[in-house]
Amino acid sequence: MGERLHVLYRIQCAPDQASGRALGIALEQSTELPAGAEPEAIHALGLPGRVEELVPAAWPPPDAHALPAFDARISFPTELAAGGITALANVLFGNTSMQTDVTLLDADLPAALVADYGGPRLGSEGLRRLLAIPRGPLTCTALKPVGASVAELATLAGRFAAAGIDIIKDDHGIGDQQYAPFAERMPACLAAVAEANARRGGSSLYVPHISGPLDTMRRRLDLCRRAGARAVMVAPMLVGLPAFAAIAAEAAWGSEPLVVLGHPALSGAARISPALLLGKIYRLLGADAVIFVNYGGRFGTPPAICQALAHGLRTPWGHLRPALPVPAGGMTVERVADLLQFYGPDLVLLISGALFPADEGLDARSRRFVEAVRAADAQAEFSPPAANATPEKGTP
Amino acid sequence: MGERLHVLYRIQCAPDQASGRALGIALEQSTELPAGAEPEAIHALGLPGRVEELVPAAWPPPDAHALPAFDARISFPTELAAGGITALANVLFGNTSMQTDVTLLDADLPAALVADYGGPRLGSEGLRRLLAIPRGPLTCTALKPVGASVAELATLAGRFAAAGIDIIKDDHGIGDQQYAPFAERMPACLAAVAEANARRGGSSLYVPHISGPLDTMRRRLDLCRRAGARAVMVAPMLVGLPAFAAIAAEAAWGSEPLVVLGHPALSGAARISPALLLGKIYRLLGADAVIFVNYGGRFGTPPAICQALAHGLRTPWGHLRPALPVPAGGMTVERVADLLQFYGPDLVLLISGALFPADEGLDARSRRFVEAVRAADAQAEFSPPAANATPEKGTP
Repeated sequence: MGERLHVLYRIQCAPDQASGRALGIALEQSTELPAGAEPEAIHALGLPGRVEELVPAAWPPPDAHALPAFDARISFPTELAAGGITALANVLFGNTSMQTDVTLLDADLPAALVADYGGPRLGSEGLRRLLAIPRGPLTCTALKPVGASVAELATLAGRFAAAGIDIIKDDHGIGDQQYAPFAERMPACLAAVAEANARRGGSSLYVPHISGPLDTMRRRLDLCRRAGARAVMVAPMLVGLPAFAAIAAEAAWGSEPLVVLGHPALSGAARISPALLLGKIYRLLGADAVIFVNYGGRFGTPPAICQALAHGLRTPWGHLRPALPVPAGGMTVERVADLLQFYGPDLVLLISGALFPADEGLDARSRRFVEAVRAADAQAEFSPPAANATPEKGTP
Repeated sequence: MGERLHVLYRIQCAPDQASGRALGIALEQSTELPAGAEPEAIHALGLPGRVEELVPAAWPPPDAHALPAFDARISFPTELAAGGITALANVLFGNTSMQTDVTLLDADLPAALVADYGGPRLGSEGLRRLLAIPRGPLTCTALKPVGASVAELATLAGRFAAAGIDIIKDDHGIGDQQYAPFAERMPACLAAVAEANARRGGSSLYVPHISGPLDTMRRRLDLCRRAGARAVMVAPMLVGLPAFAAIAAEAAWGSEPLVVLGHPALSGAARISPALLLGKIYRLLGADAVIFVNYGGRFGTPPAICQALAHGLRTPWGHLRPALPVPAGGMTVERVADLLQFYGPDLVLLISGALFPADEGLDARSRRFVEAVRAADAQAEFSPPAANATPEKGTP
């Protein structure tokens, strides 16, 4: 008891309905009974949920044709969400996810809940140690397209490593298709990057994408470890949040723990704030670095959400290690300096589509990306550091 | 090759941007490269995705203040989505889920993909056999609220069984909280229902909710089987679609297979049509019956979507057994006759909140629910049967 879980919902409705809707959410996410139909005895347990605050939404400004928006802060007893991410996700948004007038904005987890989660096992520091780059922005790109053969993808991996790109990940659409089966692709790309590293004295990291049911992911994680991979990428919403948490924990087993990179596929963006889902929950479950769709690219994420997301990953939070933000999605080399200014230097910049086609120009474009990041880092004056950026209310 | 996976997306945008956005989705969900940046060789594999059809959306009628909507049918090579639900979900909506102008409406799976899935192992027929009710509507209610003790929930279960309610499920918010730990609650409720069944010669079914990471669910499924339970409820989006598929398959192992009831928590409703997610995908992955939020209750699902969802569960589809639709969410006894008329008789009616509080009136309210369903079934003229209702375009 004592501390409660506080959850922030945005409700779009007529002003005279706001307090009724807020109470409705407090009940829907706890007792699922009309007010007063619950047994008296559960009041002593802090049930049902309580509306703590209800205010007109400060942001974004209301659209003249849309209903106004209200932010409801609702609290629940911690025990309701105890027992892992399945229970937590259900209290945060289970049935309410089906009410189209409500968006899940944020959550403040009491320390007793945070203690149940491992968070990033290596975190930004561990990832930087692997790359031997203690500070400043890191570069990342993707092996693509799906349909390319094992040999083509491995060659591409070697070329990116030769150009000096720090992190070379599988495109998340590349799984275990016959085009390039995982068991052949992963060691081939790993070897190509290792060879390029040996030639130039580099430490580029190849990050294979693992997916599928938990048992399949475990087999692939084991294959990665035996082959000498030092990192894996997982899309938590595709594989399921509990399976992601399991793999993130198991990746850290043994003497050579693997870095875990989170991918945003299937994370939606309209009903659960990416600042909460990717910035806090993915970190809570163990992502060492988190890919998210950047503002101004081909996705619609607003800058304020991107900033809150990056802040959520990097800011001190209980016993959890900080994780690295990886903005991506339609980014170009020309934007590098602006992005460094916006996010500060503790991040990974992911550019992939803009480096293609894989003709002879790809090597030069990749080197230009690496050089642009180095140059921007050398010139930038970082003020204020991103970790001090004002988060959304309730961000840790 | 040959057959392709066809996916229907709704795009809200200015008319002069519709064809560009449709092409953008076809690329985003396959090669993730600008058109033409892919290697020539992958064209022979049927890559990238292709826009097959783009038409103004017929429904709902455009809002005067909103952008118009367009329906894009986009096809992908079957191999792209092969290998299970993780790969399929990614092709359907992976990155595009983050583009707020797009909704995932429907998908037509080629037979080669459907063959990878087990579908309902018992289906509506198996569930009806367990209940010894070969035809007509079934009744269902929920044990609640979370916070009640094991003894209180077991007493409630016995009272519902005594009133003749066919299916008595845990509320999905009841997991393994200290209030009523799973290992104590499940056998206690099972025993209470068995005792009531013995007294009245009934065959009411208790359906415990299992959740958590896959390993935890496996332990709980095993506990259920040993205790003699014949059914479990799982929320696929809470536990992850691949974990749900694994549990649905494992529930059917052994000489006494367990019925699997799917719950819609965390399924959202705004960006993926419930007719696709709950009506087709949950069935594909093995749900024998699927709970969904009904029209006209406290959720906003339109009647046409409810009808398409029920149709998706019951209609012939390859080797997949039919599953039972379970409309729920703010339903009342007064609506029973209308709902039977709307859905036809092959369904489960779930009423829970309206039966509470758990005072002495609960028994009478529960019996009235059971009697109202019997009376409505006896009087109804079912024309046309719901399985002939016109589905949304692309529903199987």
